[in-house]
Amino acid sequence: MNAPARVAVVGATGYAGYELAQLLLRHPNVSTPTFFLRDSRANLRCLTELYPQLRGWGEAPCQPLSVEAVAGSGAEVVFLSTPHEVSLALVPELLQANPALRIVDLSGAYRFRNPETFANWYKLPAPDAATLAEAVYGLPEIYEAALPRARIVANPGCYPTSVILGLKPLVEAGWIERTHGIVADCKSGVTGAGKEPKRETHFVEVNENFRAYNLFKHRHTPEVSDHLGLRQRDFVFTTHLLPVDRGILSTLYVWLNGSRQADEVEALFRKFYSGRPMVRVMPGGSLPELQYVAHTNFCDIGFALDTTGERLIVVSCLDNLGKGAAGQAVQNLNGMRGYPETAGLL
Amino acid sequence: MNAPARVAVVGATGYAGYELAQLLLRHPNVSTPTFFLRDSRANLRCLTELYPQLRGWGEAPCQPLSVEAVAGSGAEVVFLSTPHEVSLALVPELLQANPALRIVDLSGAYRFRNPETFANWYKLPAPDAATLAEAVYGLPEIYEAALPRARIVANPGCYPTSVILGLKPLVEAGWIERTHGIVADCKSGVTGAGKEPKRETHFVEVNENFRAYNLFKHRHTPEVSDHLGLRQRDFVFTTHLLPVDRGILSTLYVWLNGSRQADEVEALFRKFYSGRPMVRVMPGGSLPELQYVAHTNFCDIGFALDTTGERLIVVSCLDNLGKGAAGQAVQNLNGMRGYPETAGLL
Amino acid sequence: MNAPARVAVVGATGYAGYELAQLLLRHPNVSTPTFFLRDSRANLRCLTELYPQLRGWGEAPCQPLSVEAVAGSGAEVVFLSTPHEVSLALVPELLQANPALRIVDLSGAYRFRNPETFANWYKLPAPDAATLAEAVYGLPEIYEAALPRARIVANPGCYPTSVILGLKPLVEAGWIERTHGIVADCKSGVTGAGKEPKRETHFVEVNENFRAYNLFKHRHTPEVSDHLGLRQRDFVFTTHLLPVDRGILSTLYVWLNGSRQADEVEALFRKFYSGRPMVRVMPGGSLPELQYVAHTNFCDIGFALDTTGERLIVVSCLDNLGKGAAGQAVQNLNGMRGYPETAGLL
Amino acid sequence: MNAPARVAVVGATGYAGYELAQLLLRHPNVSTPTFFLRDSRANLRCLTELYPQLRGWGEAPCQPLSVEAVAGSGAEVVFLSTPHEVSLALVPELLQANPALRIVDLSGAYRFRNPETFANWYKLPAPDAATLAEAVYGLPEIYEAALPRARIVANPGCYPTSVILGLKPLVEAGWIERTHGIVADCKSGVTGAGKEPKRETHFVEVNENFRAYNLFKHRHTPEVSDHLGLRQRDFVFTTHLLPVDRGILSTLYVWLNGSRQADEVEALFRKFYSGRPMVRVMPGGSLPELQYVAHTNFCDIGFALDTTGERLIVVSCLDNLGKGAAGQAVQNLNGMRGYPETAGLL
Repeated sequence: MNAPARVAVVGATGYAGYELAQLLLRHPNVSTPTFFLRDSRANLRCLTELYPQLRGWGEAPCQPLSVEAVAGSGAEVVFLSTPHEVSLALVPELLQANPALRIVDLSGAYRFRNPETFANWYKLPAPDAATLAEAVYGLPEIYEAALPRARIVANPGCYPTSVILGLKPLVEAGWIERTHGIVADCKSGVTGAGKEPKRETHFVEVNENFRAYNLFKHRHTPEVSDHLGLRQRDFVFTTHLLPVDRGILSTLYVWLNGSRQADEVEALFRKFYSGRPMVRVMPGGSLPELQYVAHTNFCDIGFALDTTGERLIVVSCLDNLGKGAAGQAVQNLNGMRGYPETAGLL
Repeated sequence: MNAPARVAVVGATGYAGYELAQLLLRHPNVSTPTFFLRDSRANLRCLTELYPQLRGWGEAPCQPLSVEAVAGSGAEVVFLSTPHEVSLALVPELLQANPALRIVDLSGAYRFRNPETFANWYKLPAPDAATLAEAVYGLPEIYEAALPRARIVANPGCYPTSVILGLKPLVEAGWIERTHGIVADCKSGVTGAGKEPKRETHFVEVNENFRAYNLFKHRHTPEVSDHLGLRQRDFVFTTHLLPVDRGILSTLYVWLNGSRQADEVEALFRKFYSGRPMVRVMPGGSLPELQYVAHTNFCDIGFALDTTGERLIVVSCLDNLGKGAAGQAVQNLNGMRGYPETAGLL
Repeated sequence: MNAPARVAVVGATGYAGYELAQLLLRHPNVSTPTFFLRDSRANLRCLTELYPQLRGWGEAPCQPLSVEAVAGSGAEVVFLSTPHEVSLALVPELLQANPALRIVDLSGAYRFRNPETFANWYKLPAPDAATLAEAVYGLPEIYEAALPRARIVANPGCYPTSVILGLKPLVEAGWIERTHGIVADCKSGVTGAGKEPKRETHFVEVNENFRAYNLFKHRHTPEVSDHLGLRQRDFVFTTHLLPVDRGILSTLYVWLNGSRQADEVEALFRKFYSGRPMVRVMPGGSLPELQYVAHTNFCDIGFALDTTGERLIVVSCLDNLGKGAAGQAVQNLNGMRGYPETAGLL
Repeated sequence: MNAPARVAVVGATGYAGYELAQLLLRHPNVSTPTFFLRDSRANLRCLTELYPQLRGWGEAPCQPLSVEAVAGSGAEVVFLSTPHEVSLALVPELLQANPALRIVDLSGAYRFRNPETFANWYKLPAPDAATLAEAVYGLPEIYEAALPRARIVANPGCYPTSVILGLKPLVEAGWIERTHGIVADCKSGVTGAGKEPKRETHFVEVNENFRAYNLFKHRHTPEVSDHLGLRQRDFVFTTHLLPVDRGILSTLYVWLNGSRQADEVEALFRKFYSGRPMVRVMPGGSLPELQYVAHTNFCDIGFALDTTGERLIVVSCLDNLGKGAAGQAVQNLNGMRGYPETAGLL
């Protein structure tokens, strides 16, 4: 079970896919992955044709994508770094073609308990209910127990990872006064907006700028509510675009249902994340910063409590391409295969 | 009353002071200002010695600062772009030396109703009560009526300007459900952190970084509560450092005490800011962006309402050196002297 | 001759056009311009529909572009902020329709003495020879005398303006040892690369990056040689993309044909630019910086001389949208109409 | 000889030292290093006290610096990440205390053949001639043969590494027409300017800015001439500050002494760097970019040749903290100890 994994990657032409390629190429428990490419990239034969900057650093074979090719490739674990609609179709097709495959899907297609949630928020067909029922939400700090047997792991969204990890200990402990509402004010770097050139990501439109976007409409909203068990009206989730390449910082506002001391809050978080190496609870009132999680798989969590002990601000910080995407996918692989949780991630 | 103003500026070595110098030099109703400099700058004789980059653009005389020199300079309006403790002492001294002077103070010393509020939050002596009683809080959109006779105008802080302008219409209308708490999540560019080199503003510490700071401790907190009439425990105010030079964007979260339509909300803001040229209410659900207020004196305000009509997010955006400091000081001058509100500001 | 100018602008949907609109709207000698828009923008009726961020700041009427409409609009001066191929055709068409029109063309179509130079470097038809013969190269510091009577002013490229202004005094004085070759190493902000989203200007591809581009192939190469009178093999011109919005800094390397003192060099530049308010020769060995020319129409020029007095580095700095495009177009208008050279530009 | 190395690091409080710490902590052939700290840091006991962001990632013991402590620490190789004057004294003191020690010094103290060169350019005492005579200039692509026996390795400066690697093949081949002069126009990110807060590195002074600095005065000038064998008057070297964290891009201009084809030039570079995994010659006329060497130990080299085949531009690109400092120090360690050249660096 702890033998090196034979893996394949479908897609890998976006920022998260490139990050994933780099992580897998240096993972000590993974054989050289095969990349399956689509469309205009289908004719490439090796990864450095796609990413010349990897020359001298790492190399891997590429093939045109087909269900048969992936299913018969000998890969045990397949990563899908593909658009939502592509993953939606590929997951059941791959499992039908080769029921022994195990899949880590980086898209949003299999993240929701109710198939209609995906259909409504993504304006795409609902995922097949039986396939969805099998999917594990790949947030290892919370759903780790399900990973060793999972055939389908739905890798979480970047914003939800940061918000859920920041609030889960408080929700579980029942400390939140819900009548006040919870606010999650999130800010992300530009790699989170994709690699496709568009007006919104033109350098001049982002640089020296800052703006909120998709208020009350962001697709990650139901992902957060689902996994925190919050009602929509008790929870506001907003997203903003930072003029940086990488990173998400979420400022989370909760009113507590009783007065607490700062060390009680810190103890709650420390206990919840005890033995979880990829979440770092900041010591003694210090706060996380984007720069210290960039290029890592850490989620750093700090907080501030007001003098009444009733108003709490949690700050949760991660790299949207690391713990928010590719790093977490590798962490899921480690959980699925029984490797050390941090293998290939430090 | 509408004759050109003779003005003086004390300080002007920080970012706000430089901005103020530029605005005053091109203001159509202002004669060339005299600058009074302190300490190591006291021996400079003209503004381009302090700011060589102004050569060919504008020039003004400089003198060493003394109360007598300012009081006897012939200036009718004096701008104080000085540290809090310097303004604290200078305001009464200048008015004693020349009771006809009128002062716009950019520091925090005379912004609070209760002298102890300043003393507690700024760790400095309390301002003289009689002097303070005379001070007008220089937010023209709200306290305009008091400007024509004001001898002391306390120019507001950058964050408070953005938060107060974003929430005041809702507070006045009584639309806010206070039991839920109001959250003001604010983000500022680096000029707001001052010109003094320090670790926190070193390029490498700010660039590609983002962080929250001074949670529950920022000095602007009581300034906001004071002028919005909020109790501390109903209101959370946070500040973050953006990797940009200029601008503040505040995301303001309120729960309404009844369901509203988006056009009702827009109408409320439009009515409140009717005839106020420096506040621009965004049309039809569009949201403000930092880039469109940079280098202006505008405060742009937009909002989003959820489908229940009960959760409202207001986004308020300004240039911390413009409407958040020097521009607002000029707007106050315009109000004090009866000039058009936008004179020198478009 | 000094009456307010009636002007029209064709185009204005790019960064230079937006800058031009802002400058013309606040120019004291210019009536409200009319904007003529093409293609998908042709149906807009006012400038704030195109640029909502101008609401409350300025407004102007828009019309669909046609030669007849422009020719009969009553405009005395027409600015073309259009692609090269559009300007190429429009200039003769407009002058034929209304010979009294005067045109400032911001494209490259009429900048070269030899029509074939344009055809070869821009891969477009050559401009009409008679039309070209009439065109004045709009670098006022050098060709000012021709402006008052010019019907066609070819507004220079951004890079050429910075390089020509930096080297012209030395070339004219005959101080350059040409056998050594002249190197112009230029760096530009991203607005110079246009507003169209593409991979090269995606935020993530520019931010934290720096690269040379178009080596030995940049279209501005012959524009520099033409107006400096250099042979191609004596001159190397390179361009790099800086992760900033605005500005060009050119580092210019020359070997002198005799040993000079620094004050001789400074005197040469001061004399050459005496009475030229938009070129600022830096005093006493100080060097220009991008930040001090951004949002201005200045070209700042400084230099360093080695201890032998024979190797000279000139640093020339401007805002590519200011002195490198829209500001220079306004400066040309001032020259054409006999307004003060800095009117609307300080 | 290939056993794991026992190493110590002196200093490590600057950006290069932090980079070095990270590289050594994950180097497969290096035991956990001991850090020796000075001054206000002398009392720290472990690396995460100095760098809390390393918690969960790596840890190492710290001790107060003394010659005796380092000499008796059991370390076989000592890295000095210390100011020039500290290294100047420490190198001979450490070797006297323990002649078996081997030292990699990241300062400039032992990089010059002539001790007076250091004294003149750094305004410090000259290094001891006997000590200096022993020092190897640690550019492994050129001086590799001397590394296995070196006791003192002077780790090169960041700019010189990029310039020397970009020009050495041409110099060695005798292809350069020296009468024309060589120009090296170099641009660096801000980590190269150190961690000490100062006006020049304040965020607001660097962001959206670009400037040349230290023209004809940069201390790296003689380091380049020394190791390329150039006379001062044939060579101009300039440095500029880029608004990015990391990276150097050098644009190198040479006139060739005969016409060449592009494939000849590429072949020359390929041959020279054959078997050198840390230098990547760009294929077929493509040019390097800063983003692809950031966070790596690669030096990427590309070029462009004009149509005459006589004017050549070489572009050389590296990470100033990687191949320009800490990465190169590790590469030197690998050469000294007989480890694979890329060990710990991919």
